[in-house]
Amino acid sequence: MDYQGALEVVAAAVRSQVGQGQVAQYIPALAAVDAGQFGMAVADMNGDVYGVGDWEEPFSVQSISKTFSLALVLARDGEAIWQRVGREPSGNAFNSLVQLEYENGVPRNPFINAGALVVTDRLQTLTDDASTTLLDFLRAESDNPDLAFDPAVALSETEHGDRNAALAHFMASYGNLENPVPTVLQHYFWQCSIRMSCRDLALAGGFLARHGLRADGGRLLSRREAKQVNAVMLTCGTYDAAGNFAYRVGLPGKSGVGGGIVAVIPGRCTLCVWSPGLDERGNSVAGVAALDHFTTLTGWSVF
Amino acid sequence: MDYQGALEVVAAAVRSQVGQGQVAQYIPALAAVDAGQFGMAVADMNGDVYGVGDWEEPFSVQSISKTFSLALVLARDGEAIWQRVGREPSGNAFNSLVQLEYENGVPRNPFINAGALVVTDRLQTLTDDASTTLLDFLRAESDNPDLAFDPAVALSETEHGDRNAALAHFMASYGNLENPVPTVLQHYFWQCSIRMSCRDLALAGGFLARHGLRADGGRLLSRREAKQVNAVMLTCGTYDAAGNFAYRVGLPGKSGVGGGIVAVIPGRCTLCVWSPGLDERGNSVAGVAALDHFTTLTGWSVF
Amino acid sequence: MDYQGALEVVAAAVRSQVGQGQVAQYIPALAAVDAGQFGMAVADMNGDVYGVGDWEEPFSVQSISKTFSLALVLARDGEAIWQRVGREPSGNAFNSLVQLEYENGVPRNPFINAGALVVTDRLQTLTDDASTTLLDFLRAESDNPDLAFDPAVALSETEHGDRNAALAHFMASYGNLENPVPTVLQHYFWQCSIRMSCRDLALAGGFLARHGLRADGGRLLSRREAKQVNAVMLTCGTYDAAGNFAYRVGLPGKSGVGGGIVAVIPGRCTLCVWSPGLDERGNSVAGVAALDHFTTLTGWSVF
Amino acid sequence: MDYQGALEVVAAAVRSQVGQGQVAQYIPALAAVDAGQFGMAVADMNGDVYGVGDWEEPFSVQSISKTFSLALVLARDGEAIWQRVGREPSGNAFNSLVQLEYENGVPRNPFINAGALVVTDRLQTLTDDASTTLLDFLRAESDNPDLAFDPAVALSETEHGDRNAALAHFMASYGNLENPVPTVLQHYFWQCSIRMSCRDLALAGGFLARHGLRADGGRLLSRREAKQVNAVMLTCGTYDAAGNFAYRVGLPGKSGVGGGIVAVIPGRCTLCVWSPGLDERGNSVAGVAALDHFTTLTGWSVF
Repeated sequence: MDYQGALEVVAAAVRSQVGQGQVAQYIPALAAVDAGQFGMAVADMNGDVYGVGDWEEPFSVQSISKTFSLALVLARDGEAIWQRVGREPSGNAFNSLVQLEYENGVPRNPFINAGALVVTDRLQTLTDDASTTLLDFLRAESDNPDLAFDPAVALSETEHGDRNAALAHFMASYGNLENPVPTVLQHYFWQCSIRMSCRDLALAGGFLARHGLRADGGRLLSRREAKQVNAVMLTCGTYDAAGNFAYRVGLPGKSGVGGGIVAVIPGRCTLCVWSPGLDERGNSVAGVAALDHFTTLTGWSVF
Repeated sequence: MDYQGALEVVAAAVRSQVGQGQVAQYIPALAAVDAGQFGMAVADMNGDVYGVGDWEEPFSVQSISKTFSLALVLARDGEAIWQRVGREPSGNAFNSLVQLEYENGVPRNPFINAGALVVTDRLQTLTDDASTTLLDFLRAESDNPDLAFDPAVALSETEHGDRNAALAHFMASYGNLENPVPTVLQHYFWQCSIRMSCRDLALAGGFLARHGLRADGGRLLSRREAKQVNAVMLTCGTYDAAGNFAYRVGLPGKSGVGGGIVAVIPGRCTLCVWSPGLDERGNSVAGVAALDHFTTLTGWSVF
Repeated sequence: MDYQGALEVVAAAVRSQVGQGQVAQYIPALAAVDAGQFGMAVADMNGDVYGVGDWEEPFSVQSISKTFSLALVLARDGEAIWQRVGREPSGNAFNSLVQLEYENGVPRNPFINAGALVVTDRLQTLTDDASTTLLDFLRAESDNPDLAFDPAVALSETEHGDRNAALAHFMASYGNLENPVPTVLQHYFWQCSIRMSCRDLALAGGFLARHGLRADGGRLLSRREAKQVNAVMLTCGTYDAAGNFAYRVGLPGKSGVGGGIVAVIPGRCTLCVWSPGLDERGNSVAGVAALDHFTTLTGWSVF
Repeated sequence: MDYQGALEVVAAAVRSQVGQGQVAQYIPALAAVDAGQFGMAVADMNGDVYGVGDWEEPFSVQSISKTFSLALVLARDGEAIWQRVGREPSGNAFNSLVQLEYENGVPRNPFINAGALVVTDRLQTLTDDASTTLLDFLRAESDNPDLAFDPAVALSETEHGDRNAALAHFMASYGNLENPVPTVLQHYFWQCSIRMSCRDLALAGGFLARHGLRADGGRLLSRREAKQVNAVMLTCGTYDAAGNFAYRVGLPGKSGVGGGIVAVIPGRCTLCVWSPGLDERGNSVAGVAALDHFTTLTGWSVF
């Protein structure tokens, strides 16, 4: 079966689950999204992209941005970041301070909020403008110069940002931030606010299927580094449900509370699925179901 | 490069790390093992097996047994076991009671001790003799009728078994054991005491590479179930270092404090490496290094 | 106002709260108690005792026994016990394993279950029969030779004793028990099962008001030790509600899930109140209310 | 023995412990204090005050201020504050976020930092200038119009205030602050910076011995409220060592990392002791020893 055919079978199969779950409520700008949307795209190794449903509709990438900022730091700085953030699953909710206290301000992995703040902090140090650096990269990889921040979301995040401010100050109290807390928070909120479609994200994540090669053939990450990002996605990419995601889907994946999930089949393709209704752990209900169907249908799990 | 060649390159590369780390100290029978040993074996899809070093030397399988007892329960009982044990990484040391208390007696996954006790309890209910059922299965898959329990190890575990007794009584207090605590502990200690070589374990784990098919061609697990066991191994198989193992090695793997590690390349082969010196998280130092070299050399990571 | 008058005023004032809350449910023998009972007694420094309501009705002392076993250990062994158990409030539910794990098997105080098991273990080592030693002491102090264990309660505790068994094995794994787990549990369950009335307990706790002097004028504890037991009662005596008890009642007190509470006004008298309905933290609803009224009425709080 | 005589005996007895422990290091302004100082004062019910050593030397009150801000809130607002802060000992270090997360942003008591921030927040709402209100009150009670903030300390706290900022933002994320985080932090840091001597503090805490009456005879707190503040001091006033303080000293007390401790003997007198060397839990080594000696010498423990 070809990609387009597979996407259509999957979309039909999960139709009844679209609209299930709950749209993210913690900021008004996300709570207003229509839950009945669903899109899915696949980008192959050549950069050809296939899609179904609302696959060209932009949505808020939210935590999916964490994968890209991690890759940009690894590309510039190598493995030094692992002195400041771990790569173990957290066993706690994604914004938990408990773990951070027991481990003295070193977040367990780069995909919990605390860890992503450290990565953004480092990217800010390295580039002097973390969020713009990220946006430029995403525009280039997705070949979409129209990608943009969503100021309403970024400001809404800022207004409701006490939990992230607590995380950032807490790490600062352990000396694990290089930039002022407000600077780090600002870039973090702006990076999360970027709007992209399934098409855009499937293309932008292509370097993870291409073992580190960018869309233009240049190398972003070494083969070893690309493998490492995929490994961290698989063990830590879907909040406190990473074990279940590996169990059901069997692919490296990174979800966001905007309802998107990027998943990678190394050496073959990158997928992005989007549907705003979230399960209790913050992952798209129809999105996880679609990836489950896709890997079952194609047999392309990494396991 | 062929398997035998790869094994010899790897063995040479990690020679300096053999003997590093610390042999498991918690029971005398394990503390007496010579740390300077190293063996590694690969079994391919046809059941042909290749080895290097002390690959035919039996050692105590310890927690590696947890993979097999899980598979035997899934084979008999399907997914019902997941009502009683989770499949998320724990974020805590492998024998932690903390997590168990916060989650009301449901262990996070089947590879922490609490979870393995639940699996053994279920296998006992299903077979009326969990440890013998497991031994018979391992003998058949490894084609080695001489496999046996090590009574000295089992008794030593029993004598130093207060931590596991605490876990078992604690779960019993939540109604999450079907059999009496002493029965469950006994079968658990005996299953951990089984002695096998790298050769035996590479063969016995062949069904995980063969998508669920046993050595005799019969089906133990469905393709989906085999994928699921591999996924749980990858996210939870190496104690509180699963993220790092995925990052370095990029394969599903299950370690034991006897110094062995079984790893799976789905559709290709099963590996077993053994060297008794452990890192601070309980995984074989030279064993992890060897698997890291092997996947780098061959490019056969799942990522 | 005299003691008898104060008791009658208090009993009338709390009448509407008798029967509120919930009788302890965790063992059948306690769940069958009539919730509508209420008794209260005061024993003065001369050993004269006054009472109201069901003050001569025996009930299960449960955790109140912990105060007496602590005193008996201090009397024989001095402050050595504080090497094995702390004296800080726990900040957790009374049977929590979490704290025990973070503090390496040393319970926070002698009144959480883990701490009481350590005290019983020590009393067993010192006397070779901890529960009988305790019973003999209570008979002597209350001048009531008919005091007895309740075998139905002790056996019921044993049958439902997995949580305490977990605590005991867990401490044993840290080397913090001197006797075998089953021995310690047995004496602990029997000591909790002793049946006493408010009259009996007010008399038996007289040494805490008399700065360490027994009913016969002999010295059990030094003045300093008696002060210390009172201090530990005040900070740790009513499970996770000790702060609130100090705030409302302002006296050292020790409660049990049988619905009894012993409280001490140093230099003046010992009180015991009983009513089986418990609040969500395991303290008698009408009992706490009665002590609150009593101290407000008399102005005899320690604060 | 009279107060002056008792103070001199105590001062002699603890001389060898003066200078032990470690001066608070977390801000430079405190780290520079000479550890070899010791002072102690007693104020009786009439407002007569006795002292020994450096009892007229001002020092940074730090957390001792928490007692006074709590009293000022209770005086204006009654028991409403207990909806926003508990009164149970914390069982954790005084600035722990762990407890705060498990209890959804409601601090366990008003003397851990999180709880004190809530109290300051409420005082700010009630008075529109929390720190000045507190300073005015302390000037009046101590009859010392020269009491003042220490700007160097307040600014140093602000510069090293990430941990408290984390606590404040974290509570804000649960909706448990009424004022902006920077406002609350500012008033909190300024209140902690007030400099007072043992003489000043013994007089200022007189209302706690006088069952709520101020120095001028006016009523600040009801008798019941005064009792409640004393109870909370006893169970929560000395960080994670409250149980031990009750055990050794047997008085309600509140310590600060400046090395001061205020203690109350209800109906008799208020004490203040000061010596900058702290034990590992943040309480003055010589200060605790002096109070221990004082209560042993006089027999005036509440137990």
